[in-house]
Amino acid sequence: MAEQEIALIVGAGPGLSASLARLFKKEGMKVALAARSPKKLDGLLKEINGHAYPCDAVVPKDVEDLFNSVSRDNGEPNLVVYNASRRIHGPITAVDPGEVLNAILVTCYGGFLVGQAAAKRMVPAGKGTILFTGASASIKGFPNSASFAMGKMGLTGLVQSMARELQPQNIHVAQVVIDGGIYEPTRDAERLKSRGPDGWLDPDAIAQTYLNLHRQHRSAWASYIELRPWTEKF
Amino acid sequence: MAEQEIALIVGAGPGLSASLARLFKKEGMKVALAARSPKKLDGLLKEINGHAYPCDAVVPKDVEDLFNSVSRDNGEPNLVVYNASRRIHGPITAVDPGEVLNAILVTCYGGFLVGQAAAKRMVPAGKGTILFTGASASIKGFPNSASFAMGKMGLTGLVQSMARELQPQNIHVAQVVIDGGIYEPTRDAERLKSRGPDGWLDPDAIAQTYLNLHRQHRSAWASYIELRPWTEKF
Amino acid sequence: MAEQEIALIVGAGPGLSASLARLFKKEGMKVALAARSPKKLDGLLKEINGHAYPCDAVVPKDVEDLFNSVSRDNGEPNLVVYNASRRIHGPITAVDPGEVLNAILVTCYGGFLVGQAAAKRMVPAGKGTILFTGASASIKGFPNSASFAMGKMGLTGLVQSMARELQPQNIHVAQVVIDGGIYEPTRDAERLKSRGPDGWLDPDAIAQTYLNLHRQHRSAWASYIELRPWTEKF
Amino acid sequence: MAEQEIALIVGAGPGLSASLARLFKKEGMKVALAARSPKKLDGLLKEINGHAYPCDAVVPKDVEDLFNSVSRDNGEPNLVVYNASRRIHGPITAVDPGEVLNAILVTCYGGFLVGQAAAKRMVPAGKGTILFTGASASIKGFPNSASFAMGKMGLTGLVQSMARELQPQNIHVAQVVIDGGIYEPTRDAERLKSRGPDGWLDPDAIAQTYLNLHRQHRSAWASYIELRPWTEKF
Repeated sequence: MAEQEIALIVGAGPGLSASLARLFKKEGMKVALAARSPKKLDGLLKEINGHAYPCDAVVPKDVEDLFNSVSRDNGEPNLVVYNASRRIHGPITAVDPGEVLNAILVTCYGGFLVGQAAAKRMVPAGKGTILFTGASASIKGFPNSASFAMGKMGLTGLVQSMARELQPQNIHVAQVVIDGGIYEPTRDAERLKSRGPDGWLDPDAIAQTYLNLHRQHRSAWASYIELRPWTEKF
Repeated sequence: MAEQEIALIVGAGPGLSASLARLFKKEGMKVALAARSPKKLDGLLKEINGHAYPCDAVVPKDVEDLFNSVSRDNGEPNLVVYNASRRIHGPITAVDPGEVLNAILVTCYGGFLVGQAAAKRMVPAGKGTILFTGASASIKGFPNSASFAMGKMGLTGLVQSMARELQPQNIHVAQVVIDGGIYEPTRDAERLKSRGPDGWLDPDAIAQTYLNLHRQHRSAWASYIELRPWTEKF
Repeated sequence: MAEQEIALIVGAGPGLSASLARLFKKEGMKVALAARSPKKLDGLLKEINGHAYPCDAVVPKDVEDLFNSVSRDNGEPNLVVYNASRRIHGPITAVDPGEVLNAILVTCYGGFLVGQAAAKRMVPAGKGTILFTGASASIKGFPNSASFAMGKMGLTGLVQSMARELQPQNIHVAQVVIDGGIYEPTRDAERLKSRGPDGWLDPDAIAQTYLNLHRQHRSAWASYIELRPWTEKF
Repeated sequence: MAEQEIALIVGAGPGLSASLARLFKKEGMKVALAARSPKKLDGLLKEINGHAYPCDAVVPKDVEDLFNSVSRDNGEPNLVVYNASRRIHGPITAVDPGEVLNAILVTCYGGFLVGQAAAKRMVPAGKGTILFTGASASIKGFPNSASFAMGKMGLTGLVQSMARELQPQNIHVAQVVIDGGIYEPTRDAERLKSRGPDGWLDPDAIAQTYLNLHRQHRSAWASYIELRPWTEKF
C-alpha cells in the first residue's frame, strides 16, 4: 500500500488555499493548514478533516514550530505550498518604508523560511515537492507597486535557486504564477460579471495545476508555469 | 455522450509523437499522424488504430491537403500538435545558407502553416487546442547553432502571437519547451546510462504534460512550460 | 595614426539608418549603405560622402557581392548594422503564407546572411562589431502580427547564438530593441504631436546607443539593450 | 552656463564606485559618496575633491539624513547610484535566517530606501537619474545562493516598478547587470591571469556605461543592460 501523503499549505485563506486543501484531500492526502489566524479556517477544516496551525511565516521560530507540530500530528509533509503575500499600493514617494519592508518579508522572506524548513525535512527523506505562488508582479514590476514587485521577483529568485539546488536531490521545486484575478464569491457581483464567463481564474482550476506539478515524473519536471484566463490581456 | 476528440500530430516519429499518440488514444481520442515519410509509422498506427498522412509541413498546399484529409477521414481535429524541427550544427562562418533556411522553415514556418490551418478550422468551431514543441534553443541561443535558435525562438514568437490572438476566441495555444535529451532506446547504451536514472526525459512523461495543458480549464490556461530532468543543469 | 573605420549599414532608408550614417561619418568612419533600391539614398550619400549598393538581403549571392564590393571600394567593414525588416498585419487565419514567409526572410534570414558574411571577414581579422535592430516584437508576440514576432524573435536567437560564438573571438555582437515609434517628419503632424515632446524615439538618439555599443571596452560588452521613450507604456 | 551636476553613490568602495566617482568628477560633477564606514574612502575623496557620508542603507533614518546632508553640502543630487549588496553562500538547509534576511535588506530594501529618497527630491525637481547595480543573480538563481537571488531579483522588481512610474515624470531609472567578475588589483595574481586579457570587467569600462545611460536622450531611454567580458560563458 502506498504511503499516505501529507500536504502543508502555508498562507491559508478562503480562496486558492481552500481549493488546494479540498483537492489534496480528495487525492487521499492528509492536509495541514497554517495561517496567522487559523480561526477563520474552521469550516474548511471540518470539511477536509484537517489540522490548522497558527504561524507568522516571517518569524523563524514560528516556522520551525509549525513544521514540528505538523510532523508530530500528521507525519513529515512531502508537499508544501507557500501561498502568503502582502502588498501595499501607492507612489514610491509616499509609501511607508515599514509597510514596504513588511510586504517584502511576507511575500519573499517567509517563502524562504518555509522553503528552508521544508528542505531540512525533505533532503534527509530524499524526496518531496515545494510549490510557491507567484503573481503578475512576478513577471512585470507595475507602477505604484514596488513592494509587490520586489517581493514576488525576489520569490522567483528563491524558487530558481532552490530548484537548481534541490531538484538533483529529488525535491521538486516550482512556482505557479497567477496572472489575473482569482474568482472570489465575496467580490462585488457587478465586478464579477464584468469580465465575462471564466474571466476570473477559478481556484479549483488553479489547484489542478498545482497537483499536476506534484504528480510530474521527475524526468520531466517543470519549475515555472504562468496561468491566466483565456480572455486576459498580457 | 461527449463528442469524440480528434487529435492531429504533425512531425510524427518514434519518440515523443508516439507517446503522444498512445496517450491521446488511451484518452479516447481518434489520432491522426502526419510525417514526410509516414511509412515508418506503420507499427504505431496498428497499435493506436490511427491514420497517417504524408505531409511536408513547409509546403502550404501539403498542409491544406493534410487538414482536408484528416477532416474527411476523422472529423475536424480539436487538438493539434506541431512537433517538427530541423537544425544544423557548425560555425556561423561555415554553415550552408540553404540548410539554415531549411532549418528555419521546418522549425518555425511549418509551425505557422500548421497553426494557421488549425486556426482556420477552430475559429469557426469556437474551440480547440494547438500545442507546439520547443527546445533548449527556445530559451538560449547556443554557439554553432544559430539555425536552431532562429527556428525555435521564431516559434516562440508565433506561439505568443497566436495565444494573444486566439485564446479570447476559446482556442488554447501553448508551447512545451523540452530542455534536455529525450530518452530513445536506440541511443547508445553507455550514453543512456551516463545520465543516471531518469536523466533523460521520458517521452510518456512529457506527453502527460501536453495532455494536462489540453485539459486545463479555460479560466486558468498556461501557454508556456519548460520541462527538464531532475538532474539537468540549467 | 589609427586606422580608419569602415561601417556598413544594410537596410538603409531615410530614418534610423540615415542617423547612423551621419553619426558614423562624424566619428571619422567611411560609411557604406545597402538597400534594395539605393536610388532613394542619393541625398544622404552626398551628405556623408559615402557609397550605396543595391542588395536584396535575403539572396545569398547578393549579400556576398555586397561585401565584396564594399571591401573593394572601402576596405573590409569592421562595423556592420542589419536594419532591415518586414511585417504583415492581419488575423492568423487571413494572412497570406507567402507574405508571412517573406517577412520572416527579410527580418531574420537576411540578418543571418549579413551576419555570416560579416563574420567571415571579421573572424580572420580578429575583430569587429555586428549590430542588429530589434523591435517591440522582439519582446512580445502581438496578436495579428505573427510574422513580425517570428522574424524578430528569430533574430534574437541569431544574436544570442552569434554573441556566444563570436565574442570570444573578439567580435562584438549586439541587438538594439526599439520599443516604440521612431520619429519621422513625414508622419502626420497631428499624430506626431499626439505623443507629446520626445514621445517618439529620436533616430539620432538611437544612433548614439549603437555607437556606444561599438565603443564599449571588450571587458564589459552588452549584447542586448531596449530603448523606449520616457513616456512609453511597457 | 549649465548647472553643475551632483552625483551620489551609495555603497561606495574601492572597486566600481571609485571608477564611477572618478568618471563623474571628470565629467564636471560634484561627487558625494556614502558607505557604512566612509573612513576607507579617504584616498579617493582627496583625489576627486568629494564628500563622504556614513550611512547604513537599510535604516530609513540614515538614508533620510544622508540625502539631507548631501543636499546641504552639495545641492540636490540629480544622479544617484545604488551599488550596495550582500550575499551569503551555503546550502539552503544550512544558511542562517538572520543572515539571509540581512542580505535581502542590503541588496534590495536598501535600494528601495535610497530610490525612494532620490525620487522624493527628483519628482519635485522634474528630472534626475537613478541607477542600480545588478549581478548574475539578477538573471539566474544559482544553487547555494538563494539570498543573493532573492535580493537581486527583488531589486529588478524595484527597478521595473520605478521605471514605469517615474520615467513619465522625466526621471530615468535603470539597472546595470554585471555578469562576471570585476577586476580588482587586490585579487590573487594567478587568479587574475587565469581569465586571460580583459577576462575580468574593468570597472572604468563599466562606469562608462553608467555615464552613457545618464546621458541618454529621454526619447530613447534604456532601463536595463547586462555587461560581461568578451570571453564570459553565459
